[in-house]
Amino acid sequence: MSTLPHAPRRAFPRIDGEIHVAGQPLSRLAARVGSTPFYALDRGFLRQHVGGLRARLPAGVQLHYAMKANPMPALVALMAGLVDGIDVASAGELQVALDAGAAPAHISFAGPGKRDAELRQAVAAGVLVNIESEREVPLLAAAAQQLGLPARVAVRVNPPFELKGSGMRMGGGGRPFGVDAERVPALLTEISHLGLGFEGFHLYAGSQNLNAAALVEAQRACFDLALSLAAQAGTPVRSLNVGGGWGVPYFPGEQPLDEAPVIAGLAELAARAQAELPGAALVVELGRYLVAEAGIYVARVLDRKVSRGQVFLVTDGGLHQHLAASGNFGQVFRRNYPLEAAVDRPGLLREPVNVVGPLCTPLDRLGDLVDLPQAQPGDLLVVFQSGAYGASASPQDFLGHPHCVEVLV
Amino acid sequence: MSTLPHAPRRAFPRIDGEIHVAGQPLSRLAARVGSTPFYALDRGFLRQHVGGLRARLPAGVQLHYAMKANPMPALVALMAGLVDGIDVASAGELQVALDAGAAPAHISFAGPGKRDAELRQAVAAGVLVNIESEREVPLLAAAAQQLGLPARVAVRVNPPFELKGSGMRMGGGGRPFGVDAERVPALLTEISHLGLGFEGFHLYAGSQNLNAAALVEAQRACFDLALSLAAQAGTPVRSLNVGGGWGVPYFPGEQPLDEAPVIAGLAELAARAQAELPGAALVVELGRYLVAEAGIYVARVLDRKVSRGQVFLVTDGGLHQHLAASGNFGQVFRRNYPLEAAVDRPGLLREPVNVVGPLCTPLDRLGDLVDLPQAQPGDLLVVFQSGAYGASASPQDFLGHPHCVEVLV
Repeated sequence: MSTLPHAPRRAFPRIDGEIHVAGQPLSRLAARVGSTPFYALDRGFLRQHVGGLRARLPAGVQLHYAMKANPMPALVALMAGLVDGIDVASAGELQVALDAGAAPAHISFAGPGKRDAELRQAVAAGVLVNIESEREVPLLAAAAQQLGLPARVAVRVNPPFELKGSGMRMGGGGRPFGVDAERVPALLTEISHLGLGFEGFHLYAGSQNLNAAALVEAQRACFDLALSLAAQAGTPVRSLNVGGGWGVPYFPGEQPLDEAPVIAGLAELAARAQAELPGAALVVELGRYLVAEAGIYVARVLDRKVSRGQVFLVTDGGLHQHLAASGNFGQVFRRNYPLEAAVDRPGLLREPVNVVGPLCTPLDRLGDLVDLPQAQPGDLLVVFQSGAYGASASPQDFLGHPHCVEVLV
Repeated sequence: MSTLPHAPRRAFPRIDGEIHVAGQPLSRLAARVGSTPFYALDRGFLRQHVGGLRARLPAGVQLHYAMKANPMPALVALMAGLVDGIDVASAGELQVALDAGAAPAHISFAGPGKRDAELRQAVAAGVLVNIESEREVPLLAAAAQQLGLPARVAVRVNPPFELKGSGMRMGGGGRPFGVDAERVPALLTEISHLGLGFEGFHLYAGSQNLNAAALVEAQRACFDLALSLAAQAGTPVRSLNVGGGWGVPYFPGEQPLDEAPVIAGLAELAARAQAELPGAALVVELGRYLVAEAGIYVARVLDRKVSRGQVFLVTDGGLHQHLAASGNFGQVFRRNYPLEAAVDRPGLLREPVNVVGPLCTPLDRLGDLVDLPQAQPGDLLVVFQSGAYGASASPQDFLGHPHCVEVLV
């Protein structure tokens, strides 16, 4: 049992002993959904959390949602109204964003391996393409000519530095993402030569970072780099995406990101932009940070087994629907996501339990030695911090169980 | 670049420089499939490999296919004709097995978290249920009574030992799988009391093991344990599933399993069974070992990028369709699956390359510093040993790319 606690949560309060979602007890929501497992996202919390952040951002800074974090259509439609733009990573995501009502003017498309057809779809849709490779330039020019439409482009730059302490490193050294900073001037010449509509730069130095100072430093470095590149662009920069990487606490002992210094850092950059890049908007692109805390994964206990002194709660949820919580998505050693019983009250008999899924593999594990009230088949368990990289990032077909339901409440 | 080679392969020969599948060049197969990426399974190799193994197994030993390894319907239909039985892990897999023409008499159903409805479906189908928990016994009895059908059962035993050196440990100590050996006698009394049709035992001590001696030892220990439990069953044992766990070489330096001693060990057990458990069939349950080598994953190069001296081949295939090859499925540190260019000839200029997928994450990587002939967009790359835990074990919806095609050739 870990001795460190999970960070306190700001959503899904426990009222009269039961977790509530958007004002209703989880048992009622489960009855409404009609099957377990399911993901639930809290619309009210999203409005408050995302709307609140947007309001706190300095003037001249725009907030984008990277929908790869959670592409659920109803969520994307909600988010389209809460943020300044949607970032998509494939033509499939582009369709969802357009269906959700996002304006093409406020959609950008990044990805290191865009297919020819996807580039053409992006031009036809009128969205901004973040160019990740010299290869994309003539393809976009050809699509623009064929379709009789402008190709709106920004250049994704592979910076010569990385975001320190990130869960995933996206910049520095040789990378498949973006164009090496030192090759950008030649690319800008080519973009201009082929008549593409240059709008700005996109930089992304890392993800899932809880260290405010590292984020501030990376944002500033991205800005400085973009500034030096902008001088060589010939065309004014209208948009400068300095990436995201703002993390959320998943594991015991992790502390929430201290937002204030990051926002203060952005304010400083916005002021500089006004002077040094007049007319340019700064864009912060966040996925996980906007939606992870707003979601839970709910599974039902199928069995309580005692095996050689250890208690196992076997649930209908597991790795196939929540790969990240099982510890199999980019983690070297598995640690527990916050996991609680839907119903918990003082005075209940408690025990340390291992929470596992229904699959025939020891990888299918949602909790190691979690302290829970003694559970019985039929009880609901809740995995918090599950609004990002859940259903869409899991091998739902594995072992042939039904896919889970996702609801926005 | 790893200095150790991958184990030589027995399928997908290179003829005139090009990988062939079932006698045709991969480029022709790719044209027939019509899109990349795709998985291809070699029907002829499967017939030879699975049929050959079945023929080499001693009399009294049956070969089962654990379809969790690859549930592609056409493959399951082929396998149903090549093996003695199909093992399913969910009601979803049961449907595929029945549709594939597998006889219910030769289907068994294991899984630590079977839903009530799944147990009822199994009784209605007439398949053997491997009981993993005391909880399942009254549910099966009720289903049998309601449906007016017998409930065929075996007991999955959690042995007090484990298969040494396994990729995954499935027995020994407290586990969610099966019933602790020491509690089986009481369970047998309950099974008899409730009138279920007891047929035998199922033991499974580990998986993905390349050490023949460890497998022989585990098989013998499983047999001895089952023998001691059988003495307390009251009903003759008709089937004794001693599990599988036979591994395949994935990574540089790994050697193929030496089958001969494992088969010799089974022959010894079959002889003992004839004397000590008359009428009982020994069952070997294999998934990966039967199909992994028979499959390839084919992706197309979208881009060749040079970033700060490193070459990246960006392909349309990746983590979302082949999670295991990306190193994110139960591996602590990623190592390369065997990966080659579809076309390779002596004299071609070669270079070390990183092969990555189209996703915006550094986890999306199929090969680190692989020595390949210099590739261009449009070229096909092949990941071998991909017939098991491929499409069905991958998060195909991640980032919204189209699902891959699977073909049996």
